Amino acid sequence: MAATLVSKNQSFQGKQYVYKHASPTTQCGMTFGVYIPDHEPDEKLPTLFYLSGLTCTHANFMEKSGFQQYASKHKIIVFHPDTSPRGIDIEGDSDSWDFGKGAGFYVNATVEKWAKNYRMYDYIVKELLEEVAPSVAPIDLGRVGIFGHSMGGHGALTIGLRNPEKFKSISAFAPICNPITVPWGQKALTGYLGPDQTTWQPYDASEILKTYQGPRREILVDQGASDNFLEQLKPETLKPTEHAGVVLRIQPEFDHSYYFIASFMGDHFEHHARILKA
Amino acid sequence: MAATLVSKNQSFQGKQYVYKHASPTTQCGMTFGVYIPDHEPDEKLPTLFYLSGLTCTHANFMEKSGFQQYASKHKIIVFHPDTSPRGIDIEGDSDSWDFGKGAGFYVNATVEKWAKNYRMYDYIVKELLEEVAPSVAPIDLGRVGIFGHSMGGHGALTIGLRNPEKFKSISAFAPICNPITVPWGQKALTGYLGPDQTTWQPYDASEILKTYQGPRREILVDQGASDNFLEQLKPETLKPTEHAGVVLRIQPEFDHSYYFIASFMGDHFEHHARILKA
Repeated sequence: MAATLVSKNQSFQGKQYVYKHASPTTQCGMTFGVYIPDHEPDEKLPTLFYLSGLTCTHANFMEKSGFQQYASKHKIIVFHPDTSPRGIDIEGDSDSWDFGKGAGFYVNATVEKWAKNYRMYDYIVKELLEEVAPSVAPIDLGRVGIFGHSMGGHGALTIGLRNPEKFKSISAFAPICNPITVPWGQKALTGYLGPDQTTWQPYDASEILKTYQGPRREILVDQGASDNFLEQLKPETLKPTEHAGVVLRIQPEFDHSYYFIASFMGDHFEHHARILKA
Repeated sequence: MAATLVSKNQSFQGKQYVYKHASPTTQCGMTFGVYIPDHEPDEKLPTLFYLSGLTCTHANFMEKSGFQQYASKHKIIVFHPDTSPRGIDIEGDSDSWDFGKGAGFYVNATVEKWAKNYRMYDYIVKELLEEVAPSVAPIDLGRVGIFGHSMGGHGALTIGLRNPEKFKSISAFAPICNPITVPWGQKALTGYLGPDQTTWQPYDASEILKTYQGPRREILVDQGASDNFLEQLKPETLKPTEHAGVVLRIQPEFDHSYYFIASFMGDHFEHHARILKA
């Protein structure tokens, strides 16, 4: 299904677009943003997928992170999708800010009530990356990375590590690192996947890292030392292994906000550019 | 009256604050933001005042312009006030988005209905700059500049040129340059000052420039070529004189949005830093 243009703004040396499209994966309309730097005709560009945190739409990152200047500088396309299905009504999907709308947690739900629509994992990994993205941007599918914030940091780590053939570089801002052990994660995973915790493991970055055997990854993680949600995030559970290095930087005085994200956005683009353009 | 802290966030190498205070000038509570770069004890820093456009509060600039990275880099304090009195109700102050709340136009109103509160000119030039700012930040009153966007570009140009002893550097993004000749300006100036157009001249940058005799100023103005509001802005009316140079840059494809502002924010900080730190 072709994506429809919602808005277009010149930003640095490139254009910030918003599109909507009917998604077969989530069975509803989905909105996403994409920044495309100026480029030569026929030029394919490295591309990043940014996954947002709880309560966000596609827009927060676009308006508050200042990422466009770095995407422009490094000539990297950036896709930034929504955080859940929208425009459908499932009983309970708006009762809390950490479950349902704005809180898809990047899983494929198996609990019947949510299973039809809450398939954000497949939406990102299959539909958006492989079908929609190439239809709107000159994406080089061999040079794709992923990053995100908080719930979206969890999404970036889990999706990136489970699909190393698709995502060559990974980073995160204040990610939920060990969701199976914290209230946000337990609520979401119980709700979307049911009580059998063995089904939760593929959605827990710290657990995935323990058995990750894919190509070597160097993961950059920034974490604010004054983040009010530290007990939900547990960055210390992200243990480096033979196959995956973890550069965890604890940033004094920074909190969980977009002021924190914006302050280190340049470093994350340097990280991804170094790997994707090597 | 002491300002009360509303919020504080670490951002780059400095802190983004929001304060509120009871203003004797506007006879109501006023909210403003200020970014203070890290500095030595007793160090006084050059300072910029940023005036926002129609419908904005103190917050748009803080959240969407990405200015903090440049303020941090150049070690410049930045104050960004609200665009009108708030929290009072005057009949007609919310009927339109281009007059009343969010649209103070940086004038001292003389029409009785507005004259008590709508005194944004004095609020910026006297109260905020001279009384409030020094109470919350280590401002060097000898190194102060002013800039703004759209209605706030109008404010920056008129306030800057009328108070050269207070503001040493001036720049603007898509300013309203000749308000006495365009619908936005005529509506506001009639409403706040009444029909006698001789009282409007001190609030029209193009008119002020014609007779400006103060110390030499170099004014940087960026204007998007695809700005939907060009006929309200009239950048071509800003004529350089012996006492004031105008560098007007027409930026292809850019519109009136914060994507435009963010794209050239770095250049404006370079401009102000060059003058204030000379």
